[in-house]
Amino acid sequence: MKKSKLVINAFVFEGFTGLDLFGPLEVLHRLDKAECVYISLGGGLVENAQACKVQTSTLSAFVKDNILLLPGGFGTRALVENEVAINSIENLVQKSKFTLCVCTGAALLARTICLNGKKATTNTKAFEWVKSQNECVLWQKDTRFVKDGNIYTSAGVSAGIDMALGFVCEHYGVQKAKEIAQHIEYNAFA
Amino acid sequence: MKKSKLVINAFVFEGFTGLDLFGPLEVLHRLDKAECVYISLGGGLVENAQACKVQTSTLSAFVKDNILLLPGGFGTRALVENEVAINSIENLVQKSKFTLCVCTGAALLARTICLNGKKATTNTKAFEWVKSQNECVLWQKDTRFVKDGNIYTSAGVSAGIDMALGFVCEHYGVQKAKEIAQHIEYNAFA
Repeated sequence: MKKSKLVINAFVFEGFTGLDLFGPLEVLHRLDKAECVYISLGGGLVENAQACKVQTSTLSAFVKDNILLLPGGFGTRALVENEVAINSIENLVQKSKFTLCVCTGAALLARTICLNGKKATTNTKAFEWVKSQNECVLWQKDTRFVKDGNIYTSAGVSAGIDMALGFVCEHYGVQKAKEIAQHIEYNAFA
Repeated sequence: MKKSKLVINAFVFEGFTGLDLFGPLEVLHRLDKAECVYISLGGGLVENAQACKVQTSTLSAFVKDNILLLPGGFGTRALVENEVAINSIENLVQKSKFTLCVCTGAALLARTICLNGKKATTNTKAFEWVKSQNECVLWQKDTRFVKDGNIYTSAGVSAGIDMALGFVCEHYGVQKAKEIAQHIEYNAFA
């Protein structure tokens, strides 16, 4: 992957699950020249599932041709019905080099056209609900994460960390992935 | 533990590591009637190591006789020299039923009197620096987390999740810890 600045565009919304976002970010932010940008539909403070209010920019701060990170959480239940949100996410995915999506964030992706005919996974306990959002997706059970083309999807919450390490492994090599896993004392690659 | 409201007081500072905080919070917030409060020395927006700005209250929002959660991160390097910060942290620890401290957050705790003569651990790679903050602490290497009295300390970053699950195991039973681990799809108790 390019050696210039690497931007991780974190798309957040009311009720996102904290670890869905901050797990993968902890991994990806440790890549060379990585920067994080926090965006939401309306900008401003966005409250997550753990009552943490995070400052965000509007979508105009999105940096294309980089990484889009999409968490899940109970907030997805309302967001799948929000046409503006789904169209915006579709647009962000299409302008990103890679999309990494955690847990029920896959329900949002499934409502776009971006997963049609592609393999994807999601939270084990919410599997049937997410699957019901789009039956044209080739849903994969019993896996930590799935890659199809430039879209990565993971199982629930902490599986996002494995997905991020898998992404690093693929694009930066196993040594880099091991190094990051050791720095965050994560046992997956220990 | 009491069945009434359980408050997790998350003490944050400039340059805290995201996963140090949001890993344990993901676990603890799933306990019955758990609420999270985000506090900092000055209140307002606090930027973490991943450029995420989190809204905080001043220390007046701290809820005593509950849980204090203290993350680590590069911001601890400056904070260990900040007498006001250390005195404040000492005060918060003394007013908390339990203190849970992740990674180099132990350097802050070590600067208070609260760890004197007690067993504690910290980030593997920063071990010598943290140890140098207070040689009266019984520093433990090669462990995911340590409990001594009402103070829990963990190794680096992701070890905070194990510590939080260990805390749940001890105070709410192994079944509750397994249930939460399954919900967040964390393999430690799988």
